[in-house]
Amino acid sequence: QQDFTISDQLAVNALRFMSIDMIEAAKSGHPGSPIGMAPMAYVLWEKFLNFNPQDDKWLNRDRFVLSGGHCSALLYSLLHFNGFDVSLTDIKNFRQLGSKTPGHPEYQLTPGVDASTGPLGQGFGMAVGMAMAERHLAVQYNRPGYPLIDHYTYSIVGDGDLMEGVAEEAINLAGKNRLGRLIVLYDSNDVTLDGPLSLSTNENAAARFKAAHWDYQLVEDGTDLNAIAQAIRNAQQTSQPSLIEVKTIIGYNTPDEGTSKVHGSPLGKQNVAITRENYGWPYEPFEYPTTVYQQFAQYTEDKARNYQEWQEMFADYQQEFPTAAQQLTRQGMDIANLSSHHQVGEMVSTRVANAETMQDLAAANPQLWGGSADLFSSNKTALKDNQIFRPANYGGRNIYFGVREFAMAAAVNGINLHGGSTAYCSTFMVFSDYLKSAIRLAALQHLPSVFIFTHDSLAVGEDGPTHEPVEQLAMLRTIPNVQVFRPADANEVVAAWRVIGQTDDRPSVIVASRQNLPVLAETINAAVQRGAYVAADAAGVPDGILLASGSELSLALNAKECLEKDFQVDVRVVSVPSMELFNEQPAAYREEVLPDAVRTRLAVEMANPQPWGQYVGLDGAVIGVDDFGMSGNGAAISAKYGFTVENVVDQFLTILRKG
Amino acid sequence: QQDFTISDQLAVNALRFMSIDMIEAAKSGHPGSPIGMAPMAYVLWEKFLNFNPQDDKWLNRDRFVLSGGHCSALLYSLLHFNGFDVSLTDIKNFRQLGSKTPGHPEYQLTPGVDASTGPLGQGFGMAVGMAMAERHLAVQYNRPGYPLIDHYTYSIVGDGDLMEGVAEEAINLAGKNRLGRLIVLYDSNDVTLDGPLSLSTNENAAARFKAAHWDYQLVEDGTDLNAIAQAIRNAQQTSQPSLIEVKTIIGYNTPDEGTSKVHGSPLGKQNVAITRENYGWPYEPFEYPTTVYQQFAQYTEDKARNYQEWQEMFADYQQEFPTAAQQLTRQGMDIANLSSHHQVGEMVSTRVANAETMQDLAAANPQLWGGSADLFSSNKTALKDNQIFRPANYGGRNIYFGVREFAMAAAVNGINLHGGSTAYCSTFMVFSDYLKSAIRLAALQHLPSVFIFTHDSLAVGEDGPTHEPVEQLAMLRTIPNVQVFRPADANEVVAAWRVIGQTDDRPSVIVASRQNLPVLAETINAAVQRGAYVAADAAGVPDGILLASGSELSLALNAKECLEKDFQVDVRVVSVPSMELFNEQPAAYREEVLPDAVRTRLAVEMANPQPWGQYVGLDGAVIGVDDFGMSGNGAAISAKYGFTVENVVDQFLTILRKG
Repeated sequence: QQDFTISDQLAVNALRFMSIDMIEAAKSGHPGSPIGMAPMAYVLWEKFLNFNPQDDKWLNRDRFVLSGGHCSALLYSLLHFNGFDVSLTDIKNFRQLGSKTPGHPEYQLTPGVDASTGPLGQGFGMAVGMAMAERHLAVQYNRPGYPLIDHYTYSIVGDGDLMEGVAEEAINLAGKNRLGRLIVLYDSNDVTLDGPLSLSTNENAAARFKAAHWDYQLVEDGTDLNAIAQAIRNAQQTSQPSLIEVKTIIGYNTPDEGTSKVHGSPLGKQNVAITRENYGWPYEPFEYPTTVYQQFAQYTEDKARNYQEWQEMFADYQQEFPTAAQQLTRQGMDIANLSSHHQVGEMVSTRVANAETMQDLAAANPQLWGGSADLFSSNKTALKDNQIFRPANYGGRNIYFGVREFAMAAAVNGINLHGGSTAYCSTFMVFSDYLKSAIRLAALQHLPSVFIFTHDSLAVGEDGPTHEPVEQLAMLRTIPNVQVFRPADANEVVAAWRVIGQTDDRPSVIVASRQNLPVLAETINAAVQRGAYVAADAAGVPDGILLASGSELSLALNAKECLEKDFQVDVRVVSVPSMELFNEQPAAYREEVLPDAVRTRLAVEMANPQPWGQYVGLDGAVIGVDDFGMSGNGAAISAKYGFTVENVVDQFLTILRKG
Repeated sequence: QQDFTISDQLAVNALRFMSIDMIEAAKSGHPGSPIGMAPMAYVLWEKFLNFNPQDDKWLNRDRFVLSGGHCSALLYSLLHFNGFDVSLTDIKNFRQLGSKTPGHPEYQLTPGVDASTGPLGQGFGMAVGMAMAERHLAVQYNRPGYPLIDHYTYSIVGDGDLMEGVAEEAINLAGKNRLGRLIVLYDSNDVTLDGPLSLSTNENAAARFKAAHWDYQLVEDGTDLNAIAQAIRNAQQTSQPSLIEVKTIIGYNTPDEGTSKVHGSPLGKQNVAITRENYGWPYEPFEYPTTVYQQFAQYTEDKARNYQEWQEMFADYQQEFPTAAQQLTRQGMDIANLSSHHQVGEMVSTRVANAETMQDLAAANPQLWGGSADLFSSNKTALKDNQIFRPANYGGRNIYFGVREFAMAAAVNGINLHGGSTAYCSTFMVFSDYLKSAIRLAALQHLPSVFIFTHDSLAVGEDGPTHEPVEQLAMLRTIPNVQVFRPADANEVVAAWRVIGQTDDRPSVIVASRQNLPVLAETINAAVQRGAYVAADAAGVPDGILLASGSELSLALNAKECLEKDFQVDVRVVSVPSMELFNEQPAAYREEVLPDAVRTRLAVEMANPQPWGQYVGLDGAVIGVDDFGMSGNGAAISAKYGFTVENVVDQFLTILRKG
């Protein structure tokens, strides 16, 4: 079967030279892989990928994730020739400040970019999440005669991607979930940044993927458009996820082809000239023949027809199933039914309170789903009246991610990138380390991914230092565009979820206790949405301020009482469930809560003290944790580290007397 | 071949019941896996593992890493019965505050524990590092007739371990390096915390490991001591790393055997009683028959003989090869030859300066080796006159870890745990996220691992937000027991390495620039060992203080000049290469550098501002970065984010006038 003509070959070369041209102009970029990958990308995009450049958020479009984001020049070339809003001027501004064509693809910045990629392996993980979302929504929304959701998810990955642990986890996650509509093309060029691939790996990709129950195909010549097309057609037919290993030559037809020299730097004027000769490409930089644009346009028309048919089907669907249609396209979550399950004085851990609130939220919001990295029974994050997401039941809302924290988080980002549902994930707080980079990528992409971390302090106790988070809270609070919540009790948990339910442009983190905490009167109207608030005020002008979050709020309140009764010291207690939200408040509110004139300030939090410097200043202090904790009874450890009323009172009086 | 008797079976049961007893007493712990794993652990420890309980740091002992650290009760039982300094009282104090038997095994706390484990997958990764160290040292130090280093590295891993990305990376790293003396027993019980393993994975372990060129064996009955022994014997003969999958039943012979119920909680009184009956174990809790101790002692004697023979060989070796013997056992590094390669005013990036200093250090210290996660050409961390570590040349000191940041860091920890050499690793600063948990584990274990992160700020430029570190510096500074250095120029780089070369009890992080920076006069005698110092003082009492690190120090110095000349403002500039070291200084020194009375303070650092709150207080300010940066020219980005003399001067004057 010969599907391709000389015009196709010319179009492939146009992709190559546009990539080369923009990298030369920018004097920066990665030309080798775009040159090698252009044929497979062309075949995939033109013959298979369904999209509409005028509606780049179309829900049932095929998804495409360029996992090796450093090959961005190729993606921008594809977007340009396929009619997305990426002009030749944009192309010429590659890697320039404020351009639509940054060094690595950025979701929401450039039309047609389905995911921000660059941190290797995570693109693959997000693609797996997109394919999970597709299956889930298909079960939830498709009706007889209405295959509303039935797209493919494609990704191109490279040798570097496949070495990353997150990709390895994602391979297994996809295999286990039998994601037949996930098709991954592997740009297998046997070269990495540092040289021949053999320097760093000798893994057998075919055997590796088959071990995880993937379908595997090999395309021996990565310039053979027909062979690539046939492999993709085959892959569409399998019920397993598919890997197509496409052997390519990095920097094909350039003087340094097949070596790492063409990986990460512009080819340079002389080598570009030789490459033009090798390809018989007579055009000037940024000059592409009209016939190439016509060639791309021909495919674009087919795609437009598919899009139109889907829109017509969806219009009928909206008539016949208005509730489902509305549900599928809704924005934000319904938070009207959220309220605390507990009375003041009851003892309940914030992980349990979190679970209860999540059940309420899930009942009102069928679009909410998620899972745990094999810690459902500890995190308590399974949706109780729901089933397991698996091949026999993709409608299930509880995802067993396995002990794969990083791929879990990447997949959740992929689900939220996909749209149509909202996903969360959970693990122990100390293992937020394992998936931190995925929180970053959620924040960078403005995704409403929710990360739930239980067992949030030394009070974890017996499991000891390897399981006691200390510095993670500070770490999470430094990631830009993330809202971190450490609720003090069941009331603040509910208030936090009210904020999360109305957030659609950034990730949220909930940090919850393993141990029981008292439900407080002071938190009943907790202003969690303002990040910090006066939980208990001094009678007059405060002698000082106690600041606390989470499990330490009740301790601060008890210390206040003691300071008043035993020492006639009049303090204010400020609860700080979210530093990020507080820092976003108007200066007047911040001054109201933390008056500049009151310099006697003591922060109490069972974690690394770094974040509190900004609030306590040079005259205040922090009772925090500066080592890794120890194994033993949680309450005993808390006491040993100074989290007692006596110590809080002592420390406060010390500051007060010094002041 | 029948190697085992009824006495061995009794000893296996003693391991089981000691584990059960301590978990019952602690009312906390994980009994299921110790019960299921006891046979394989017994066979391995008694029939194969070479060690001396009186010299638990013996260099050529076989290493043992219990990767699933939650099975610690089994390890403590092994240590006790094998004569290590773990008494019955220690056993009874399992998981109690201050005990020698914490919830998860802790290196340096408990004699005979070769690695701190618990964070899944990392134990496996450390074992791979140990096996790399063994091969490297064997080539470096063995001489004809003196097989000084020829031990095995053993690890027991579980289903959870093998799902982790870091383990997946480690599998490939070991396979690629053909670590024939690495033997991993896989406790394959088909159950994880959340239930049947099939809920989260369906990977074929045999195929998976074979894809990475491991030798694979299956032991179908994990209670068959002879079969286990035969498999280990076979594994010792192969030149590939070996996986022995041992099928076990979690909580074997307990009422809930084979289910997740026995994973993470004590069995409970009633079930313990039934289990005693099932095993015909008539003894009271913490009562173990003398015959069991005798049985263990019999094996211990063989091991003592092996130890004695090695010591005699080493004594001869010391006579014949005194230099090599001294080198092998030396502590710390020789830093005498370190000095800057640059004159004041030259422009050189700190990554290049770092490379030069590393070459000097490596020349004087043959024990130093390490590698990069496929970024040698960017990190510049290859040792120039050296070769590649690989099967044909294990003496090579440059390790090509591949794009496997997490396993790289875990392996480096394993190398440093092993002893006899010192290892470093390197990648881009932004990907410190991928391996953060391994830095934590280095710190927790007091290992001198060195982590080199180049491309340290927004000044990375064209690669854009996915490659521009922002919050990583704050993250690294919050990990307890880590010294983080962000040198301002080539002089501070040298000074930082002088500190690192003399540090043997905690990890160091070097953060280096991609862009060129001026070599400064003010840093010639940089007091990097004190963490912060006055780089340029005010003529009189300072009107204020500028604080800076890394690439921003020269900016601060230029701003000082402008403030003096144009505004007659007299400021001090404090260089802060290491906050951790500064915070460890005596209060008097800290007051000398940052006088409490001087409250007009401005910190300048191209990173998240969180760490500076502690120094600038409520009256100061920070010029930092609170989003993810952008793609473009590095200098242009720096300017856009306010890292200009004009903005520093403006901000400083604003604070000064407010004060």
